[in-house]
Amino acid sequence: MSAKKKIGVLGASGYTGADAVRLLARHPNAEILALTANTHAGKAMDEVFPHFFMLELPRLTEWEKVDWAPQLQGEAVYGLIEFYREKIAAARLVACPGCYPTAALLALVPIARAKLIDVNDIVIDAKSGVTGAGRGLKQNTLFSEAGEGLSPYSVGTHRHSPEIEQEIGVAAGSAVTVNFTPHLIPMSRGELCTSYAKLNGASADDLRAALAEAYRNEPFVHVAKKGVLPQTQNVRGSNYVQIGVFADRIKNRAIVISVLDNLVKGSAGQAIQNMNLMLGFPETTGLEQIALFP
Amino acid sequence: MSAKKKIGVLGASGYTGADAVRLLARHPNAEILALTANTHAGKAMDEVFPHFFMLELPRLTEWEKVDWAPQLQGEAVYGLIEFYREKIAAARLVACPGCYPTAALLALVPIARAKLIDVNDIVIDAKSGVTGAGRGLKQNTLFSEAGEGLSPYSVGTHRHSPEIEQEIGVAAGSAVTVNFTPHLIPMSRGELCTSYAKLNGASADDLRAALAEAYRNEPFVHVAKKGVLPQTQNVRGSNYVQIGVFADRIKNRAIVISVLDNLVKGSAGQAIQNMNLMLGFPETTGLEQIALFP
Amino acid sequence: MSAKKKIGVLGASGYTGADAVRLLARHPNAEILALTANTHAGKAMDEVFPHFFMLELPRLTEWEKVDWAPQLQGEAVYGLIEFYREKIAAARLVACPGCYPTAALLALVPIARAKLIDVNDIVIDAKSGVTGAGRGLKQNTLFSEAGEGLSPYSVGTHRHSPEIEQEIGVAAGSAVTVNFTPHLIPMSRGELCTSYAKLNGASADDLRAALAEAYRNEPFVHVAKKGVLPQTQNVRGSNYVQIGVFADRIKNRAIVISVLDNLVKGSAGQAIQNMNLMLGFPETTGLEQIALFP
Amino acid sequence: MSAKKKIGVLGASGYTGADAVRLLARHPNAEILALTANTHAGKAMDEVFPHFFMLELPRLTEWEKVDWAPQLQGEAVYGLIEFYREKIAAARLVACPGCYPTAALLALVPIARAKLIDVNDIVIDAKSGVTGAGRGLKQNTLFSEAGEGLSPYSVGTHRHSPEIEQEIGVAAGSAVTVNFTPHLIPMSRGELCTSYAKLNGASADDLRAALAEAYRNEPFVHVAKKGVLPQTQNVRGSNYVQIGVFADRIKNRAIVISVLDNLVKGSAGQAIQNMNLMLGFPETTGLEQIALFP
Repeated sequence: MSAKKKIGVLGASGYTGADAVRLLARHPNAEILALTANTHAGKAMDEVFPHFFMLELPRLTEWEKVDWAPQLQGEAVYGLIEFYREKIAAARLVACPGCYPTAALLALVPIARAKLIDVNDIVIDAKSGVTGAGRGLKQNTLFSEAGEGLSPYSVGTHRHSPEIEQEIGVAAGSAVTVNFTPHLIPMSRGELCTSYAKLNGASADDLRAALAEAYRNEPFVHVAKKGVLPQTQNVRGSNYVQIGVFADRIKNRAIVISVLDNLVKGSAGQAIQNMNLMLGFPETTGLEQIALFP
Repeated sequence: MSAKKKIGVLGASGYTGADAVRLLARHPNAEILALTANTHAGKAMDEVFPHFFMLELPRLTEWEKVDWAPQLQGEAVYGLIEFYREKIAAARLVACPGCYPTAALLALVPIARAKLIDVNDIVIDAKSGVTGAGRGLKQNTLFSEAGEGLSPYSVGTHRHSPEIEQEIGVAAGSAVTVNFTPHLIPMSRGELCTSYAKLNGASADDLRAALAEAYRNEPFVHVAKKGVLPQTQNVRGSNYVQIGVFADRIKNRAIVISVLDNLVKGSAGQAIQNMNLMLGFPETTGLEQIALFP
Repeated sequence: MSAKKKIGVLGASGYTGADAVRLLARHPNAEILALTANTHAGKAMDEVFPHFFMLELPRLTEWEKVDWAPQLQGEAVYGLIEFYREKIAAARLVACPGCYPTAALLALVPIARAKLIDVNDIVIDAKSGVTGAGRGLKQNTLFSEAGEGLSPYSVGTHRHSPEIEQEIGVAAGSAVTVNFTPHLIPMSRGELCTSYAKLNGASADDLRAALAEAYRNEPFVHVAKKGVLPQTQNVRGSNYVQIGVFADRIKNRAIVISVLDNLVKGSAGQAIQNMNLMLGFPETTGLEQIALFP
Repeated sequence: MSAKKKIGVLGASGYTGADAVRLLARHPNAEILALTANTHAGKAMDEVFPHFFMLELPRLTEWEKVDWAPQLQGEAVYGLIEFYREKIAAARLVACPGCYPTAALLALVPIARAKLIDVNDIVIDAKSGVTGAGRGLKQNTLFSEAGEGLSPYSVGTHRHSPEIEQEIGVAAGSAVTVNFTPHLIPMSRGELCTSYAKLNGASADDLRAALAEAYRNEPFVHVAKKGVLPQTQNVRGSNYVQIGVFADRIKNRAIVISVLDNLVKGSAGQAIQNMNLMLGFPETTGLEQIALFP
């Protein structure tokens, strides 16, 4: 076995930080050496997240006390590993995509690159569990507010839209504007993008075949067989992504549905997959848990 | 006070039937005389729905024992009261729209009729609570299956699509095909349609103004002020509908969001509103409960 | 019709205040004249609670601007109407019991008073929905923390215990100490107390009969028939209480289960029931809504 | 590495079967060779549980086709590994306890054995998530019935009571009757027992110390420090148990709270822990996942 690498988690008191700790604590090649969280500095991790009661972890500390190389930020590589694997392998710093861009881009980039869809007529109706809003105290994420209800938010203005447009633009070779409308769903984890696209002569089956080919060797991205409906339950707590393609009632249109767990493949799991690649471990190391269902 | 009318509820063991009973039992002009439910015939209503423990209700009986005029079915009027008020007032039988068509049509008919949108390029992304699937025993509506998760269903094939197309077609004066994609949300009540439309030169503000004008005198349909986001929590358990209009990132496109409670304005409440009109009572009688939030 | 009474709601930005507004806005003899909420003073009520979009309500104001007679506090009467009806009818100020004491005392006072149970050996295992913790921002009431989980809290130390002990003591004619252990349940509304008692020679049937007799004329307290299990779903959104009594496996012990909606009979509804009595209206005025199920 | 053992899962279409597959598929010493489920025989596992889309698994088959030694049933050993480790290590067949007995017995057996509590005066108020009721189609486990509500069930009559009494009786050396009252909680996974006990002169601290000593070397049973409240969120999806002890308001009484995941330590995980012991693997193999929170 290779020696363990020393790992620090910056921002360990948030949900993404906690999920990174959950995964790294059982990663065979990782040793958690530092956890930072300025407002909780000095506390034990299981005071902040009691579900870590069984672990020996370093106490939380200020981020200033950790040597984490802010001077590298200028050379950060975009961490969507399915499309930037070589750059990431050679990088010293990787900036992971947000959860929404990950879900949307995995569904759309291969078919935009193959010119199968009209990239100027894409509607992405996105739905996210409440952890997507973080652990900060906000009225709209209280149980009694978000439970038993469904709310759109940031309609027409979500900060993730430009990131999605940039990468679809790179794939298509032209500037792109997309509709991206997120909704808050009464569940903790999970994200689903329903993407509506106009076809350039192709069929829904062509799209599915192109996606299947693009992800043929990807360990975590699965294209569902015709007729199988992706649902967030299938990926809860896991690093997997599931994508399905469906013909629309309207001729010459198709629907691409992608699901992931926003805290795993949408953030902490994706970061560890990148870390594995950068450190020379198999990409799947420590990430093969199957979805927790039910 | 006017005398009470004798009312029968056919199908009283389903969720829509139960919500009709909930409302009719406190309706000042209604007296429930018969409840039918073939598989439960002979039972007391509070054996089937224990939340009626405080009511005196007739026992459930077979529908054959109730005189309910099946021969009238041929003359049924489409019961979307906001658009067919005069016909309903004169009708002997009314067929209420489904919950999805109600939510979609209230958002789209006035702006289709006013030619503000391109009716051949409408995407309706619909989300519904689990009661929409009824009380029948199905695996996908078990708590452990539908909870903490989100599933699309009937993608491209939902049975409500033709009903939506028919009425938008009537409004626009031409045949129409729409995209309609429903999703199952982990909540019991509530329905939200996010409708994406291409504009015929109009702005989002124009759409909002047209909707506000169309519903100016409607007691239950409210068009939200600019910037206010409809959410299902605002109408839970009530007969109200809330509609909001938003400009899209993509030029010349807009987003119309409509919410209702599928068991009230989406079925039982709408039926009682029609009943009030047909029997000469004020339309709002027995229907003015405010949403139960939180 | 009698003239409407002018009503002020102090603390209108909390969940209890909102439920009072929900009920008072449809109360035939009430007119809401003032709403106070210091941190939100100046706002429209539907900015604070968007589900009131259909109502015309006064703007929120500071409580100092409302004439609400703090000098009366010394003469406040304990507002458990089922046991203090005469005093409340004559009172100028009523202090309503907490939600937990209401649920526990309605289950236990009549059988303590009748000496059917050993009042020094009562275990009350209480379960509450998350609205019981209020609308204030706390980490443990975030959706992602309270959802899909179950937490005991204030074990052995809950502030409602002395109030419960005081009133059972009054009923029994002796000082009493009870166990009271609350748990936070992943639902918004509802409260259930499972009370375990040692019998003084009586049977579970005797307890049920005593409770049924005590509440024979009460409009909102129903004692369930033998074998019927109370559940919070049966009273959600309503002012009703349901109580069931069960024999224990252990000889000479019984279990009394009581349910209510903490925001209605546990607070706002109970307050309005008291108000009705004090102002000379029928007690049930504006409070007869049936539970919202499902 | 040791060679993989060939494993069959009987009843693979239920929730416990599925969780066994989830864990065994990533167990380094297990190879799943057979999955039985009579009503689904012939299907692929991911038709029955779509979250297994990424696994290669044998098709479901009838149990008659698997050689599983029913003749061993007479010699089955009670599989509560913390108390029967030696017998299990030597056994050919182990019968795992139910989820409720596991949660209750881990909290009570060591303190009953040490004569710290009066075993004839124990009240166990139990709360379970909905998966405890299985995947069969029942009305009361539909999302719209079990959601946003709380129901007691089998009050005084639950089939797990005799199993709990038997083992506490063994520990105490005398016949025992306990109160055991289960409640259905609107969450999928998790079980919490609040056990109320009368003390034989001991203090709550003595109980905590006795439990801590009993489980000092146990990999999965953790006794919480004084003041730390166990909650089901802390063990969701994991094989861990957390136990807390609290002084009661009533002198000479204490409260013991235990939590586990009913599908893991309460069934599939416990079975695999026993399997590891029987086959000579470290007990923790394949079972060290940390709780999925949030």
